[in-house]
This record gives sequence, C-alpha cells and structure tokens, in this order.
Amino acid sequence: MSSTAFPAASGSEKQAEQADRIFSGKNDDYGGVIVEMTSEPMDPSLFVTILRASICQWRQQGKRGVWIKLPIELANLVEPLVKEGFYYHHAEPKYLMLVHWLPVTVNTIPGNATHRVGVGAFVMNQKNEVLVVQEKSGQFQGSGFWKFPTGVVDEGEDICDAAVREVKEETGIDTTFVEILAFRQSHKSFFEKSDLFFVCMMQPSSFDIHIQEQEIEAAQWMPYEEYASQPFIQQHEMLKYIVNACEAKIQDKYHGFSAVKTETGHSKKISYLYLNMDHNCDYTQ
Amino acid sequence: MSSTAFPAASGSEKQAEQADRIFSGKNDDYGGVIVEMTSEPMDPSLFVTILRASICQWRQQGKRGVWIKLPIELANLVEPLVKEGFYYHHAEPKYLMLVHWLPVTVNTIPGNATHRVGVGAFVMNQKNEVLVVQEKSGQFQGSGFWKFPTGVVDEGEDICDAAVREVKEETGIDTTFVEILAFRQSHKSFFEKSDLFFVCMMQPSSFDIHIQEQEIEAAQWMPYEEYASQPFIQQHEMLKYIVNACEAKIQDKYHGFSAVKTETGHSKKISYLYLNMDHNCDYTQ
Repeated sequence: MSSTAFPAASGSEKQAEQADRIFSGKNDDYGGVIVEMTSEPMDPSLFVTILRASICQWRQQGKRGVWIKLPIELANLVEPLVKEGFYYHHAEPKYLMLVHWLPVTVNTIPGNATHRVGVGAFVMNQKNEVLVVQEKSGQFQGSGFWKFPTGVVDEGEDICDAAVREVKEETGIDTTFVEILAFRQSHKSFFEKSDLFFVCMMQPSSFDIHIQEQEIEAAQWMPYEEYASQPFIQQHEMLKYIVNACEAKIQDKYHGFSAVKTETGHSKKISYLYLNMDHNCDYTQ
Repeated sequence: MSSTAFPAASGSEKQAEQADRIFSGKNDDYGGVIVEMTSEPMDPSLFVTILRASICQWRQQGKRGVWIKLPIELANLVEPLVKEGFYYHHAEPKYLMLVHWLPVTVNTIPGNATHRVGVGAFVMNQKNEVLVVQEKSGQFQGSGFWKFPTGVVDEGEDICDAAVREVKEETGIDTTFVEILAFRQSHKSFFEKSDLFFVCMMQPSSFDIHIQEQEIEAAQWMPYEEYASQPFIQQHEMLKYIVNACEAKIQDKYHGFSAVKTETGHSKKISYLYLNMDHNCDYTQ
C-alpha cells in the first residue's frame, strides 16, 4: 500500500504556490484515499489549508476513509490533524497513521492489529535429546528451568521461518520445520494486546551448539525425560499438555499441522496454509 | 497494566505548584515505568518541565523503558514528547503510546502487535448442508459466490468464541465450536500488518436463518457438494485444500485442533490451548 508523497514546501514562495494545491493520495480498495507525507518540515497553517481543500475535493469525489501516514519528524502536525477530525489508527516507531471517516454512514474503518505472534521450537536429535536453553532475562531468569528456544515472529515473517531463525540465532543449530504441534492464545499479554504462541516441531541438521551471548545463558542437548520431568513443567497444566503432545509425536501417535505453500485465487498471492496432512485422503484433488 | 494518573493542572496557581512535581507511574515487569496521562488539558511547557524532572529521577532509579500513554485530547503534547526523545510505540483510536529507552545499553523494547486474526466458520447441519452467505461489500460482492461466514477476532476475544459470535451475528444461527481445521498466515494484508485466518468447524444448534441486514445480502443452507463445486473454489488452490479438509472431516478422516482451557504456571491465568486431542494417549497424565 505505498502511496504518492506530497512534495514538501521549502521557503515562503513555495508555500504561497502550494496553498492552492491539494494532497495527492493513492486510492485504497474500499473507497478511501491514503496520503503518505514525506518527512520534510511543513508549516502547520499551510498544512491545514491544503488539508481542508483536499478534504473538500475528496468529499465531492465520494471518498470514505482518508488515511494520513505522518512521519515522526512531522509530530507538529498531529494536533492540527486531530482538530480537523482525524483520529489515531496505528503507529510504528517512525510514523503515526491517522484516519478520518468522511461519510455520514456508519464508520467501517477496520481495527488495528491485535496480536503478537511467538514461536517455541521442539528440536530433538536422534539420541532422543531435546535442545533447551536458559535465558539471561525474562520470567525464568535464575530459575534453573531449561526451556525450548522461543522468540517473536517478525512483521511479515512466516511462522515456520521464524522457528528456524530463532533456533539458529539462539543456539547455532540448523533446523527444518516439521509441524505445528499446538498453539496458545492469551490475552492482555502486552498492554491490551493478545498473543498467539505456536509450538513447532523442528528437525535438526546440525548439532554443535553456539549460543547467542546476548540473550542466552546456556544451551544443551538434554535427555527428553529429564526435560519433561522438571518440576516447573509438572506444575504447569499447559506445559504438561505440550510435553505430552511432544511425547506422542516422538512415538508417532500425534499429528499436528504441516505448512503448505498455496496460491490464493486471482491475485496468486502465495501464503502458507497450516493443516493436518497426515490422512488417507489426497487434499490436492 | 493500568497505572496511576497524573492529576491535571487547572489554573496558573496550580501550575506553579505542580512545576516541582514528577509524574507518578507504575512499574512494569521489565524495569520500566508506565505513565498514563488523564485527558485534562495541560500546558506544553509545564508538561516538559515536569517530564524532564521525572526523567532525571527515573534515570537515577535505573529505570529502562519509559512509557507515556497520551489520550488523543492531549495531541498538543506529542511534539514536545518527540523532542524529548520519545518515539511512537502503538496507537488506538483514543490514545497514542510513546516510549523512551533511558539506558545506554541496547534498546530491548518489544515490538508492536503484528497480526490481525480472522475466523471462517464451517457449519454443517444433519442434512449435509453447509451454512453460506453472500456479503454486501468486500471482494466477493456481486460475484454470486457463496462463502462461509467470516469475521475479525476482537481484541481480547478467543478464536473459538469469535467464530460463535460471527455466525450468530451474520446468520442468527447458534453454534458450538468443534475444531480448528486449518489456518492461513498472509502478509501485507492491511498496510504492513499480517493476518492469521482460522477455519473453524462449528456444530449448529439452531437452524432458522435471520440475516444481519447491514453486512449480509443473503444466507442459506446449501448442499455441501453444491458449495464445493463453485468455480471460484475450484480455481483457488487454498480454498480447495480447505474444502477437502472439510470433506475429510465430514467423513471422520480428519483431525484438527480442539480448544482446551488450561492454566499457566504460577499466575494461574486461563488460556485456550489448541491441539490435536484425537489420539490414543491421555494428555492430562
């Protein structure tokens, strides 16, 4: 959703010229328009003049949602935008996205992202040893508890790729993704946001551990029984479910969700579909 | 993560009094402090005076991340905060959350929410008819394509509950959640954000359709074969996988993920864990 930028003013002559202009934006798929401001400084009163003229035109065109992506360098324009009827939609470190619903009909602007996504990696070698770590910070710091490598899925990253990356970063071990064994949804994990945490079974293809000094205190291959018998797991209802699913998987009595790369419809966009592929029917017929 | 509010100033006497104050915040679990501003108007220069004194004290206390939750009514304080070194972390319609990392060590402030979560509901009655709808807007508008009821999972809502709610809202049908059959992760679905879409099998407990006039053009119980043979599905690789999984499920040859309510550790927080429960092992041992 890139959009055209407004060429910023510099100097009062240019400002006078530009006062007649309107912002150029890109149409979205829902009858709205998206304006992406550059980070060049802009005088707030000139900004408001152009904004009002632009909104007048967009109203005539029957536009619905008007989106303004404002770089943090233009923090001085947040207040004028709010005074003109815009509200916050979402923000990232370097910009704030504001939106204004023009029609008198019900506002159908979709909500913001609601979930963070994390992965935990169940990596077992051929000696039935599982790859475990102790972290330098976080809730288990100093507890002596050995845990699966875990991490946060980056924006735009596939869950199966995130699991490979996190294991490699934390322990130096190369793996390939096998299956999602289970996932947990929890709420108010981070301010008001929810969390989805996917337990991924991974197949290791290297075995020499090199820990990431910054985050990881220690890492090792640990006999599975020793991992599973840690008191923390035995007292933790959810971890017990996960450990039992891992154990069933080792015994080939469990089927999680595989990752299948698929195309979707006309756009032919490629996405991963996760589903149980371990059945006697051919899903591709 | 609620926090104490700063009693806002009103009148110049109060301002003079308050210039000696520091903001009171709530400590977070990571060595940081969270200040939640009230929506009472505040003079920017007074705000900066108090902010600087506060930061000085927080530095002495060894605080790491400083979070300021700023109601949209205080949009005039965004620029001063940015000038003092704060940047945007996330935003919702009524507030902006800014953060400032005080230590000289690497910034470990976690990222923002990255995913929206959606559900699609596969609801079949005892006559092997599936519940389908046509929407008044969106990509299938006017296409004649009959689709599963779908919707967005609200902030703080469980996936299994969202599926029940969406089916009820769109069609008036009461259901209970059975299993997650599959899910898709896609990227850049909404600006830079990703999307997780869960296909849920639901058991209906009522059968009279009452459509939601605002969003839904039509709804019906349709013979499954008729649904599955729609050209759009046959041309859509991912939908074919999903349809085949649904078909295998009807024939009892498919096992998705059930929802199990579990406690996690010391906090005893209740979360849903989704996993394959259809195996010959007792996960609760």
